[in-house]
Amino acid sequence: MDISALLTSAGINIGICVVLFSLYSILRKQPSNVSVYFGRRIASGRTRRNDPYCFERFVPSPSWILKAWETSEEEILAIGGMDAVVFLRILVFSIRIFSIAAVICIFLVLPVNYYGQEMHHKEIPSEELEVFTIGNVKEGSTWLWAHCLALYVICCSASVLLYFEYKSITKMRLSHITRSAPNPSHFTVLVRSIPWSQEESYSETVKKFFTNYYASSYMSHQMVYRSGTVQKLMSDAEKMYKMFKTVAVDPTCNPKLMPCGFCGESTSDFKILSSEVDSVKGKMNLGDLELATEKKECAAAFVFFKTRYAADVAADVLQSSNPMLWVTELAPEPYDILWSNLCIPYRQLWIRKIATLIAAIVFMFVFLIPVTFIQGLTQLDQLSQTFPFLKGILQKPFVNQLLTGYLPSVILIAFLYTVPPTMMLFSVVEGPISRSGRKKSACIKVLYFTIWNVFFVNILSGSVIRQLNVFSSVRDVPKQLAKAVPTQASFFMTYVLSSGWASLSCEVMQLFPLLCNMFKTFVLRMKGDSYDGTLSFPYHTEIPKVLLFGLLGFTCSIMAPLIIPFLLMYFFLAYLVYRNQILNVYISKYESGGQFWPIVHNTTIFSLVLTQIIALGVFGIKQSPVATGFTIPLIICTLLFNEFCRQRFYPI
Amino acid sequence: MDISALLTSAGINIGICVVLFSLYSILRKQPSNVSVYFGRRIASGRTRRNDPYCFERFVPSPSWILKAWETSEEEILAIGGMDAVVFLRILVFSIRIFSIAAVICIFLVLPVNYYGQEMHHKEIPSEELEVFTIGNVKEGSTWLWAHCLALYVICCSASVLLYFEYKSITKMRLSHITRSAPNPSHFTVLVRSIPWSQEESYSETVKKFFTNYYASSYMSHQMVYRSGTVQKLMSDAEKMYKMFKTVAVDPTCNPKLMPCGFCGESTSDFKILSSEVDSVKGKMNLGDLELATEKKECAAAFVFFKTRYAADVAADVLQSSNPMLWVTELAPEPYDILWSNLCIPYRQLWIRKIATLIAAIVFMFVFLIPVTFIQGLTQLDQLSQTFPFLKGILQKPFVNQLLTGYLPSVILIAFLYTVPPTMMLFSVVEGPISRSGRKKSACIKVLYFTIWNVFFVNILSGSVIRQLNVFSSVRDVPKQLAKAVPTQASFFMTYVLSSGWASLSCEVMQLFPLLCNMFKTFVLRMKGDSYDGTLSFPYHTEIPKVLLFGLLGFTCSIMAPLIIPFLLMYFFLAYLVYRNQILNVYISKYESGGQFWPIVHNTTIFSLVLTQIIALGVFGIKQSPVATGFTIPLIICTLLFNEFCRQRFYPI
Repeated sequence: MDISALLTSAGINIGICVVLFSLYSILRKQPSNVSVYFGRRIASGRTRRNDPYCFERFVPSPSWILKAWETSEEEILAIGGMDAVVFLRILVFSIRIFSIAAVICIFLVLPVNYYGQEMHHKEIPSEELEVFTIGNVKEGSTWLWAHCLALYVICCSASVLLYFEYKSITKMRLSHITRSAPNPSHFTVLVRSIPWSQEESYSETVKKFFTNYYASSYMSHQMVYRSGTVQKLMSDAEKMYKMFKTVAVDPTCNPKLMPCGFCGESTSDFKILSSEVDSVKGKMNLGDLELATEKKECAAAFVFFKTRYAADVAADVLQSSNPMLWVTELAPEPYDILWSNLCIPYRQLWIRKIATLIAAIVFMFVFLIPVTFIQGLTQLDQLSQTFPFLKGILQKPFVNQLLTGYLPSVILIAFLYTVPPTMMLFSVVEGPISRSGRKKSACIKVLYFTIWNVFFVNILSGSVIRQLNVFSSVRDVPKQLAKAVPTQASFFMTYVLSSGWASLSCEVMQLFPLLCNMFKTFVLRMKGDSYDGTLSFPYHTEIPKVLLFGLLGFTCSIMAPLIIPFLLMYFFLAYLVYRNQILNVYISKYESGGQFWPIVHNTTIFSLVLTQIIALGVFGIKQSPVATGFTIPLIICTLLFNEFCRQRFYPI
Repeated sequence: MDISALLTSAGINIGICVVLFSLYSILRKQPSNVSVYFGRRIASGRTRRNDPYCFERFVPSPSWILKAWETSEEEILAIGGMDAVVFLRILVFSIRIFSIAAVICIFLVLPVNYYGQEMHHKEIPSEELEVFTIGNVKEGSTWLWAHCLALYVICCSASVLLYFEYKSITKMRLSHITRSAPNPSHFTVLVRSIPWSQEESYSETVKKFFTNYYASSYMSHQMVYRSGTVQKLMSDAEKMYKMFKTVAVDPTCNPKLMPCGFCGESTSDFKILSSEVDSVKGKMNLGDLELATEKKECAAAFVFFKTRYAADVAADVLQSSNPMLWVTELAPEPYDILWSNLCIPYRQLWIRKIATLIAAIVFMFVFLIPVTFIQGLTQLDQLSQTFPFLKGILQKPFVNQLLTGYLPSVILIAFLYTVPPTMMLFSVVEGPISRSGRKKSACIKVLYFTIWNVFFVNILSGSVIRQLNVFSSVRDVPKQLAKAVPTQASFFMTYVLSSGWASLSCEVMQLFPLLCNMFKTFVLRMKGDSYDGTLSFPYHTEIPKVLLFGLLGFTCSIMAPLIIPFLLMYFFLAYLVYRNQILNVYISKYESGGQFWPIVHNTTIFSLVLTQIIALGVFGIKQSPVATGFTIPLIICTLLFNEFCRQRFYPI
């Protein structure tokens, strides 16, 4: 691949992006798409009046970019919660560090690479991309100090930036905890694994236990009930109520009634379950159901305390001589609770955790096997054998090209779309008690999956390593990686261009909801904003994506610096797009309070250390003992820095 | 090596043991050795009147064995504390599990091994040891189910026994915590890393902080002072006082005054530092020293609370938004505190921990290099070159044999004796605040060292693996181990006979204190019980030793069952000897409250899994897919069991 091909590819991708963004700026102005592009506004009850049909509605405008750019962090915090701010901080951090990397790599490393060997240089546009990678530097060259210096600058500035980011996020988290409005969850402790006794019900046991040990601060408690008849009747009634609302309201876009059904759904969820049994009885007016609820008591309860401090202490302290009984933890916020998981016996949790961990690892490693198998099935001759009636069509050269060129990658992408739901499923089975905990756990799994299946599998399959035994020697791993990464750099560049930028366009277009909406409006002829689900920000798919690009940037930075401008552009676009999405589309019903940052921090440290190990291998291949010698203390310092941050910030 | 040689070796070792034990039973009756063999009694003030010179004193008697056997666990608990009970439980557990292993291995596995190949059997005494190992079983033999069954029985019974031991020790630990006499340490929290402020002293900062946040339960506090002039003067005075006592007391063995000096030393240690500043002033009567003490305030303090619960909560809860400030933990017991480490800045601790960890690992791996080097230096020709005047002596065949036969192993043993002090030194540098914590940390380090340098190095050096690349393939490790272990079984047998039994004899004889005592009595002509140091039980050397023999037992059990009887004998002797030592010699001034058991538990699980992996390799070599298939679930179950125990017991 030469420079002109790369630039052409970049041009095509930029063109596609511009077209899609313009299309978006038109589509968002159409009243029929309000439910797709302004979900958050609908939910919060603030939608603009419909514009009349006018010319302006069909002209693309950059107003949404300005709006997204101008919004301050306080507004984002108020609208999207702390998780949104943390997510945007990842992008800001990436922009900052890769700007520094761009300066040093383009002005120092790139010329060194380019003039690394005495050779006849062609015109720059027709130059091979390999000329710009570290592979072009002579063995034993004294100019490798430039790469070493660049590595030092990047790692040190990344560490400094990481430290300050972590510090400010910790501060934000503390003020989030201390200064947020009083919330029932602050005074509530979730008790699980209440011991079963023959004589009394769980409820009495809880009451006895807490009046005994927390006499001064215990207020009351509420058992958790297995979702039995009552729960099902309730949710059915609720669904019917919602349908009734949707049908009954004036179809000319008056969504003011929506929030009732909406908030109603969420809050009543909590109210019903945390209010006294009497209120449930009162609502149901069915005497015989009381018996049903009593039978279905779980070994879990919410215990309410008089002070926040008492609740904190009760959540922290070991309650019983058997650590698997009377397990306490602070209750998540009402919207955040995963009710279905509360009834899982605590004893099962560790087995579930191990099982899902193993399942996720197995899934990660064998994922590519069925994909390759199915890709093999779609070979032309296979297809024409299985479906003889297609033979005629398949022999046309255009169809032929389309199938062989696109079908395998379509299959791969289709399979990749199944990954986040699968990981989410694993995380549900794991048994977390909060939605944010589930999302965090899924985020970690998707992250590992992405890094393994995009970064390592590409590197391993794209180089000679596959032929060798990978485990042949631990000491050779840096060298193997060092051989593989520069050769794969051009692939990663096109990956950033296509997958990165395209995913942003898809994100802003909201293709799937848009299609659903069109289907409803034009095919089913359903009118109005039939808002059929709240979208919360999919951190578990977006954070791994951004972190993967960070990893690509770090590892390629000193090897193939040409990738950095494309990455910077990606991060900048992502910053605008996600700000817009947070402002308009997604609703933050629950949040983890910034608990995604430690994942980001650890992944960045991992990327840095991986970069250093690869650099070590490269310096080894290029026979530069000085540069190798300088890289080893850098690895040690990075690991020490990580340990320091863990000590300093992690406990919060 | 054949059976008769093994039996001869066993006979010699038994003879040596009998002689040494008899010698011990005589020596302990001599009044001059009272300080060596009855240290604990002297310290607790209960020593027997001296017997007159009579015949009985010079006749060996088994009375100490009876005494050691008859003592109940409650007495041991009262005398030696919980750690002693935990230590004896290790021995009891080993005796139990290896009795089971002995039954199944000798009646089932041994005949299978012996008749494993169709061969002409010699007379049993002249049979090679290899005939009794698994190496004698034919490839593809159907009789390997016997080994697999034995493995299942051993692992299952070990798990069951471990579970009940852990359960009873946890119970003991809980009653140790709840039912022990009220102790100042129960109400005290050690606060470290107090932030420095310009305006006020540490003491005022602490007072302000705790009156602010713990108004209802805070009682008072006591700063920790760097051991400056005052401390040194005090300790000098104390030393002089002790010397004075030793010289002044009636030399005809009246040790009743000893305990004063003794307890005095320890308790005043605490009183001085934890009493008010005034009392220090009062004692010193030196006005200008007050200034000196104030200057040397450390950023650490003991804070006293009114209730035990408040202290527990304060120790558990995060105190400040910066987790590296106001670090609280429950104070160790007064005797247990390592005063010198209290002043280490908390920020250094994590660096110290990493540094000592790395140092210990490096020490573990490079330990054998200087030893081999020095062993090489003591070759005969080297010696005669360096010291030409020795040439004449060295050429005598007797000296020659002695040097070549014994010098290398003497050097090895001498170097091995430096290991526990070195590890202890590492543990001190690590910065624990209690003596028991230091001992626990040293115990773990010595354990890793022992297992690596005795078990793995012997296996690796004694087999073909050294020639191969050890890391050639992870999948081959079981096979390599499987090849090596049976061939090394005879070495391990002699190791148990010589090192194991001999170490017990040395332990009971207390060679080093005995020699010191003799030197003092007969050379320096110092009379009386010049008791110059309290010996606390060296858990950090003895626990690794016992666990190593356990590891040898498990790994060799189904490979070479002949080792088990010798091991059983070792454990039985150890049980008697250590009971005796705990009753008579060692003083438990401080204890960790059973915190050694998790180490024991984890090591046993490690041994079991290692055994299973080796068995996997053996079954693979013997081409028995059924046995291999049955072993894999066993490994998984063992790991799951370990995880369960960690969940169930570890938090206590």
